[in-house]
Amino acid sequence: MNHSQSPTPRDPITYLDNGATTPVDPEVIETMVSILRDGFGNPSSLHRLGAEAGRVLRQARQRVADALSVDPDEIVFTGGGTEADNIGVRGAALSASPKRKHALLFALEHPAVLQQRSFLENRGFVVEEIPSLNNGICDLDALETLIRPAETALVAVMLANNEIGTIQPLVEIGDLMEDQCPEAALHVDAVQAFTKMPVRPRSYRATTLALAAHKFHGPKGVGVLYARKKSRIPPLVVGGGQERGLRPGTENVAAIAGFAKATQLGMEHLQTDVERMTKLRDWLIGTLCNSIDNVVLNGDPVKRICNNVNVNIRGARSEILLHALEERGVFVSSGSACHASQKGPSHVLRAIGLSEEDTGCLRITLSRFTTEEDVRHCADALTQVVPEARP
Amino acid sequence: MNHSQSPTPRDPITYLDNGATTPVDPEVIETMVSILRDGFGNPSSLHRLGAEAGRVLRQARQRVADALSVDPDEIVFTGGGTEADNIGVRGAALSASPKRKHALLFALEHPAVLQQRSFLENRGFVVEEIPSLNNGICDLDALETLIRPAETALVAVMLANNEIGTIQPLVEIGDLMEDQCPEAALHVDAVQAFTKMPVRPRSYRATTLALAAHKFHGPKGVGVLYARKKSRIPPLVVGGGQERGLRPGTENVAAIAGFAKATQLGMEHLQTDVERMTKLRDWLIGTLCNSIDNVVLNGDPVKRICNNVNVNIRGARSEILLHALEERGVFVSSGSACHASQKGPSHVLRAIGLSEEDTGCLRITLSRFTTEEDVRHCADALTQVVPEARP
Repeated sequence: MNHSQSPTPRDPITYLDNGATTPVDPEVIETMVSILRDGFGNPSSLHRLGAEAGRVLRQARQRVADALSVDPDEIVFTGGGTEADNIGVRGAALSASPKRKHALLFALEHPAVLQQRSFLENRGFVVEEIPSLNNGICDLDALETLIRPAETALVAVMLANNEIGTIQPLVEIGDLMEDQCPEAALHVDAVQAFTKMPVRPRSYRATTLALAAHKFHGPKGVGVLYARKKSRIPPLVVGGGQERGLRPGTENVAAIAGFAKATQLGMEHLQTDVERMTKLRDWLIGTLCNSIDNVVLNGDPVKRICNNVNVNIRGARSEILLHALEERGVFVSSGSACHASQKGPSHVLRAIGLSEEDTGCLRITLSRFTTEEDVRHCADALTQVVPEARP
Repeated sequence: MNHSQSPTPRDPITYLDNGATTPVDPEVIETMVSILRDGFGNPSSLHRLGAEAGRVLRQARQRVADALSVDPDEIVFTGGGTEADNIGVRGAALSASPKRKHALLFALEHPAVLQQRSFLENRGFVVEEIPSLNNGICDLDALETLIRPAETALVAVMLANNEIGTIQPLVEIGDLMEDQCPEAALHVDAVQAFTKMPVRPRSYRATTLALAAHKFHGPKGVGVLYARKKSRIPPLVVGGGQERGLRPGTENVAAIAGFAKATQLGMEHLQTDVERMTKLRDWLIGTLCNSIDNVVLNGDPVKRICNNVNVNIRGARSEILLHALEERGVFVSSGSACHASQKGPSHVLRAIGLSEEDTGCLRITLSRFTTEEDVRHCADALTQVVPEARP
């Protein structure tokens, strides 16, 4: 990482697991500390300390709304991306007209979306999966066949996949839905995409969209649900009426301000950051595929988020690779952190055609702190360790 | 506030609205910053940074478990007290045997509990309120009459009330339930009580119990649900399986460590802090009732949390009092922050017999940072401003 900016100066590490979580930007920490120290008021309190906290919330909401090109009253702060996905998916399904009992979830969705299946089925929904093409892109022809104009309540398709980084054709999906089934809701998990590409809920005609601060150098424990105006989403939790009643409980003011600061920093140099990461990503993909035998890129090479490399190192075992890389100071993962403790290829890798034999997949995820030196070090280390990891 | 400890050195204020939220202890901020800076790993990651974050979580869980005299695997970290109350109340009700469709909620509960009524009713529950005596204590005779040994699934009674501070007889309630209806779950909202009196879920035979860090000098956005071993509470949110599956989503490591640090600081001098706050509280109650005409204490004078003063200043208007006090640097509230924007006496004040005419109630809530000078300044200011607020 670039140590002039890096928040972990104690240890020269090559952190390339930014899909799991990112180092918090020092400016974000500064913003949070100033609120933890001096802005501890409860926004619901009627006195000055409450009003000050309320002002911080309003500014944060405006900042995030601007980044998404939506209105501030469409932004709901949550306790994280998982919660935002849960409110979005359930809310969209439960607020549909009672005759609509059909939901379509994209096969590569995060567990926060995919595991809603039994919740929906318990409420009488028929839930089907939209298949993926082998490049990790949503099969639009299949979607068109699966959608039921008179019955579909909800379609959920993520913007960028958390394991293989493929970017989904959300504008086309939104248009298709507008054409075939305008009454259905569209939920978009944009957790991996935000600040790494433009995110425009209105261009997708999305009903709801989820973000999480810790994926873009913000703190853990704070997310955003974009909920389109006039959507009648019910809350998961009830209580004090905060956040339009959609997410009651005393607002996490410091973390929300941290979300907004991370958003500001992420949007400031979006284009140059994306260009730089794309270059590093493509160099790394090229180097790994050319310098190591039998390495194949998982997912699409072009319709791909700028920070994601996911390679299938055939015949190798990812546990051994991870361990050997860590000994050389390189931190990557074998898939998503949520899947880390499970055996075999994840549901994402299976959905794009991988099998039990593909035990050597690695996810290498960059951030705007990633340097040329980092990716070079990663490529060198991987080239060295692959022979050890192939029995 | 005691400025040698106070986190708001910029402004000499007399902050006595600690029931709404508390200043974050500087040591808690330090703990959080060190994790935000150097411990940003995702606990689910298999590498060293993940393992380090996992260790922080384990230590925090142990610390909170010790403070409650329970086991660490009974501690679930949540996004706040409201969420913990929601999971507890719904979970207890939904995990009951299907023939149990009766729930009893204490009349003075926080909205996070009381507003579960319609959720429960929509699932076929008959919900009744346990009335309060006029001193704000749960009517045990009524509870005994209301409880239905073959039908009651859930009883929810808070430990200390957020507006009038009354401490409920939880040990007796637990014994009564064990005797009459051992299969029913007991949910305890201990958000206002924790670190201001011993909190012992096992002594109450509680199934679930809720805490929130920002009420005891911890950060906002993090709570705890104690969930008794073998309780089969279902989660509100699904996803990655974190926190025994009860609260999935990447753990908010920094805030959880902050929760644990605030717990440690709160427990270290519990007895001396309680004694000191009790003395300040009783001095303030005595002074207000003696030096201002027609002032009556709301709630019980003895069975009362050490930091709560709630007085009915008859004939006065609380908005005017709040404003005049704020001009003198004194920050208090007219009730709970959650009720702040509503008109008329809260459901709590009505339940103990107050009426529309009682427009001059003030809640003054201390913390361990509160000094003698603070309560003296508050008493002086209030004595000055009451005549203005009585038309």
